[in-house]
Amino acid sequence: MGENSQERFGEEVARVAELAKELQDSASSFISRTTNEEQSVRQRAVAINSSIQKLHGSIDSAVKQGSFDRKEAEKLDEELYRARCILSDGDTASFLPNKSHGRFLKMFLGPINVRATRKDVQLKVKEEYNSYRDRTAFLFLVLPSTLLLLRTWIWNDCLPALPVQMYQAWLLFLYTSLALRENILRVNGSDIRSWWIYHHYCAMLMALVSLTWEIQGQPGCAQKQRGVQLFLQWAVMQGVAMLLQNRYQRQRLYTRIALGKAKRMDVVWGETAGVDGQLWLLCPILFILQGFEAYVGLLLLNTALVGVVSEWQARKFLIFRLSYFNFEVVVCGTLLVIMAVGNFANTVQTLMAKSRFKAKMIKSKSKQDLDHGSPPPSGSRLGRTT
Amino acid sequence: MGENSQERFGEEVARVAELAKELQDSASSFISRTTNEEQSVRQRAVAINSSIQKLHGSIDSAVKQGSFDRKEAEKLDEELYRARCILSDGDTASFLPNKSHGRFLKMFLGPINVRATRKDVQLKVKEEYNSYRDRTAFLFLVLPSTLLLLRTWIWNDCLPALPVQMYQAWLLFLYTSLALRENILRVNGSDIRSWWIYHHYCAMLMALVSLTWEIQGQPGCAQKQRGVQLFLQWAVMQGVAMLLQNRYQRQRLYTRIALGKAKRMDVVWGETAGVDGQLWLLCPILFILQGFEAYVGLLLLNTALVGVVSEWQARKFLIFRLSYFNFEVVVCGTLLVIMAVGNFANTVQTLMAKSRFKAKMIKSKSKQDLDHGSPPPSGSRLGRTT
Repeated sequence: MGENSQERFGEEVARVAELAKELQDSASSFISRTTNEEQSVRQRAVAINSSIQKLHGSIDSAVKQGSFDRKEAEKLDEELYRARCILSDGDTASFLPNKSHGRFLKMFLGPINVRATRKDVQLKVKEEYNSYRDRTAFLFLVLPSTLLLLRTWIWNDCLPALPVQMYQAWLLFLYTSLALRENILRVNGSDIRSWWIYHHYCAMLMALVSLTWEIQGQPGCAQKQRGVQLFLQWAVMQGVAMLLQNRYQRQRLYTRIALGKAKRMDVVWGETAGVDGQLWLLCPILFILQGFEAYVGLLLLNTALVGVVSEWQARKFLIFRLSYFNFEVVVCGTLLVIMAVGNFANTVQTLMAKSRFKAKMIKSKSKQDLDHGSPPPSGSRLGRTT
Repeated sequence: MGENSQERFGEEVARVAELAKELQDSASSFISRTTNEEQSVRQRAVAINSSIQKLHGSIDSAVKQGSFDRKEAEKLDEELYRARCILSDGDTASFLPNKSHGRFLKMFLGPINVRATRKDVQLKVKEEYNSYRDRTAFLFLVLPSTLLLLRTWIWNDCLPALPVQMYQAWLLFLYTSLALRENILRVNGSDIRSWWIYHHYCAMLMALVSLTWEIQGQPGCAQKQRGVQLFLQWAVMQGVAMLLQNRYQRQRLYTRIALGKAKRMDVVWGETAGVDGQLWLLCPILFILQGFEAYVGLLLLNTALVGVVSEWQARKFLIFRLSYFNFEVVVCGTLLVIMAVGNFANTVQTLMAKSRFKAKMIKSKSKQDLDHGSPPPSGSRLGRTT
């Protein structure tokens, strides 16, 4: 019976080994076949894309030379725009040339490809990013509020260092993960504005520098912690604005998807329809927030300078350390001012693009503009502040 | 002529729109076709894998019951092992069930898939990771050495805070990127030991905490900066060990690839052949380094405790701040001790696995062991210290 089972096992093993080899062969041929087919789809997509661009250019110049009826041209442009949408919104999207991954992703992840091939996976990434923003907006409001409340209720107006630094470490993690996720979204076809990503780089740097702040205690705690306190107050305001913005952008997104006009990978939307009422609430809040951001930045710069002078007179041997402490505050202050100015400029640009777009819509009822490769206000995000 | 060109443009546009629609259709059908085919390859791979496991189990128990010749069983086991290698090393590898991405990657990147389908891309990721380690090992040696040299030559034995904190920020970035890349490698089929990834989490935490250290200046600078100085000295030693290890592991890798025994995605290697001489140099250095790591950790814990007591007597109002400063030092000290102990345990385990493996090789000349799903010393990394 031993002989018998030995034989049986031998046959079984040989069979499995054979199956493994067969599978290996079919996997190889499958991969090489799909690679070739993918290549050809890719080439066709690129070719069609470039002929759309060329046609658009020729029609434009024909109109300018007067050899072409303007109305007729607009009709053709609209048709071209629709063809482009078919390419960039549907299953073909993943075959269009890759957007470069960018230095930031390469630095952290190496040369791995983070582009999803299937549209539904890309949309899942996008959805998850939105819900991540919702969750963090909530924490963004709760954490600094708690610190400020505990400061008054329990800590006698003097923040202990540990909770503040844990909050700062959380900020550093948050901004790093947001910057990574937004770079990934961009690779996956979202046309998020570059400024909002740069903004997160600035915020990362600020969180990093703020970690090295020395959180000073008694005596004169309230005076010494003025900068920290201002920073926390600004963070609370930001939390409120983020919650409002997330709500606003979600509604815009769904409106646009419902209207069938949006590439669903866009994080942000410019179509002016449906939620104009909220814009009147959001805009003032955003401008106040940006003003307050700049104010906190300037105050930090101010306290840094005043700090040096008064302490200089007090104890000469501490100058070096103090001037360094102030160097950190100066960096944070400068970063806040830069972010405030950049946010303001981008919000104004977005609003202007929106109104131009609206005016154009009313005038011509034509919604496409191929000049900039995509409809103008798309990719704008109204004063995103995270 | 205007009419004529208008007509021509109209035809062109219609043609392009038609092409776009056709492409869209073939892209959709291509994607659904490959998705189905992929699914079937995946199912076959899983089925074969589980029958290999089952057969191996039955052969084992048959041997234990005495109804099967041991020598014959070893031959069959070897054949099964080879079948497994065909599945896990070749093109089929990408169709085997995904390793979970893990919380760390999800936290930073969201739900994006970082697994490369094609083997050559996976190997490129691996290559890039190795060269990244080489580059950083160099910086790991140069940066702290420079700080220590400048301290003696220019800074009068008193480190200024800014360069030290920039170095600490670099460490934080380095460990974060290494942890991300190693998690990505693991998803791509490398069987890197979990400890080395946990080790990087510890190191990230330590770099983060060390950023919040207050780098104190005069008076008594040398005394106050004792911890920083020890840390830098340890970093220099680590740089040397990293360079040696990278060289050692590269050679092992190439030896094993040459012997045809390695999955090339493995970061580390256990085959004992060829470079035993280097092991005799590497092991003592690793053990000395681990001892020094623990010593630095204990010294940090000690200075933290002594610091509290002496300063307590000096200025009572500073107690809170000081005890906090010491809390940070305590955290860093504890982390260093944990990492030293973990590294030591893992190095010893690896060496033991190596010698067991060698003994087995000499005894039976049989190289496979399916009991643990892979040959035992694979996935071991000899006392990796980054």
